[in-house]
Amino acid sequence: MQKVLLTILGCGSALPTRKNFPSSQMIELRDKQFLIDCGEGTQIRMRQMNQKTNRFGHIFISHLHGDHCFGLIGLISSLGMLNRTADLHIHAHPDLEKILEPQLRFFCNDIPFQVIFHPLNPRKYDLIYEDKALQVYSIPLKHRVPSCGFLFEEKPRERHILREMIDFYQIPVSKINKIKQGDDFITSDGEIISNELLTKPAEPPKRYAYCSDTAYSEKIIPYIQGVDCLYHEATFLDVDSVRSKETFHSTARQAATIALKANVKKLIIGHYSARYSNQNLLLDEARGVFENTLQGEDLTVYEI
Amino acid sequence: MQKVLLTILGCGSALPTRKNFPSSQMIELRDKQFLIDCGEGTQIRMRQMNQKTNRFGHIFISHLHGDHCFGLIGLISSLGMLNRTADLHIHAHPDLEKILEPQLRFFCNDIPFQVIFHPLNPRKYDLIYEDKALQVYSIPLKHRVPSCGFLFEEKPRERHILREMIDFYQIPVSKINKIKQGDDFITSDGEIISNELLTKPAEPPKRYAYCSDTAYSEKIIPYIQGVDCLYHEATFLDVDSVRSKETFHSTARQAATIALKANVKKLIIGHYSARYSNQNLLLDEARGVFENTLQGEDLTVYEI
Repeated sequence: MQKVLLTILGCGSALPTRKNFPSSQMIELRDKQFLIDCGEGTQIRMRQMNQKTNRFGHIFISHLHGDHCFGLIGLISSLGMLNRTADLHIHAHPDLEKILEPQLRFFCNDIPFQVIFHPLNPRKYDLIYEDKALQVYSIPLKHRVPSCGFLFEEKPRERHILREMIDFYQIPVSKINKIKQGDDFITSDGEIISNELLTKPAEPPKRYAYCSDTAYSEKIIPYIQGVDCLYHEATFLDVDSVRSKETFHSTARQAATIALKANVKKLIIGHYSARYSNQNLLLDEARGVFENTLQGEDLTVYEI
Repeated sequence: MQKVLLTILGCGSALPTRKNFPSSQMIELRDKQFLIDCGEGTQIRMRQMNQKTNRFGHIFISHLHGDHCFGLIGLISSLGMLNRTADLHIHAHPDLEKILEPQLRFFCNDIPFQVIFHPLNPRKYDLIYEDKALQVYSIPLKHRVPSCGFLFEEKPRERHILREMIDFYQIPVSKINKIKQGDDFITSDGEIISNELLTKPAEPPKRYAYCSDTAYSEKIIPYIQGVDCLYHEATFLDVDSVRSKETFHSTARQAATIALKANVKKLIIGHYSARYSNQNLLLDEARGVFENTLQGEDLTVYEI
């Protein structure tokens, strides 16, 4: 079975620390990689993870605070030096193009690929990317500037045909695709063999939601209901909830409350304030509300 | 005696590696710090070195390739969040202001300090900074875009007055500064005590030169003659000299040849191409020409 893998490149917040770079992660599903946010040092983290830099074609930027997009110009510039030729698509608030275009003209005027901007409306739950295997939706969040999360949703996979049934009924190759899609099989005698006998169900499609940066907002719950994994920012401890409210961020307890109410299967927390040297406190606080919480850590791969 | 300390934050070239960030270093002399170049991740390296971020007021940018300046916006943004109030001065090619201003307006419009641009002419050897203790000069280099190195030069220090002479001649406190500056002392009997008897010479002023990025250029030799330490780029091995010429970079052998001809006391090489996993080869090549060569390494402090 194909795994869905999340690589956290950076899960610090605005101020980087010795341990955490600013926000960036790579999600890999259905043989494709997608970059989510691109804080300063994203390309360095990719190198440190030995990640190929030509496997992703789409970058999703949650909002235009520097710790989520300052790494773009360096990454694009390096992809140019590495002679990438495939177009690079950036999905972001329309202002990003205005900010990045002059830099691209100055620093990257000779790169051998196109950077294509896809403006999105962060205030809207919207289908912003689709291919034959998956869909990506924007999720409106609540922050000081327009901000959205992203929902990655696999499309249903085909059913698995059973080897022994192919042999037993002598099913010709030409029929196999249709059977995977749900058709019954009719033997040369005219006997109808039900699809359920010939196949087993595919793994259910996986869903991953990225919600950062955001204040506590129950409005996101319908969009992320039951996802296999939720990454939710947990910038502060509950004891710093005043600061959390002022800055439109969430506490670890609030992240876990959202996970609980949305009935997600797994929660990963991140976007930690630099003030906490002991991030276990954040994990403990979240686990007090939602047991299946994992600590987001830079340079770590999570199976969704 | 006050040391002159060079901290290399990044000595990679355009493509960062697992080991080397792009160009950036901090020079500390006469109780002041100055940042030279600011590639992506400079603020992260500072954190990793536990460097205070409020001790420097001037940044010198050699040229406008991304690996020497992409870290500026993140650094400035973070200094804002850390509530820096002192002005920040950036010495660079005039185009930097045009590139950075729109970013500062968008991302840093509420920072509590001023960013002041000081345009420099990279084609000219010129005094670009001066205070009571030191001077900084631009050194014209030879690169694909206008590029300059920087010469940091301490002003002569005052002579040291000898404790035992103060006591012996009962020299009043009011006279001490003048004696440090070279005056003789006249006793109450009218006897003239020569300054040489009262003082010993100060340590000679130190000089540090940063030359990156540049092709081999003997024109820089007069400017860096006899410096205590020269940092010179050594992007390539001699065996890759064709590529070196094409890109207007230097080989390790060329860096060492400049060090030898300029009769410098110590050479540090850096700006290594990402193609070399074994940087000892670069060091060996340089040492073959100039023995007192040190390998530049990220996160390392050198005494000048």
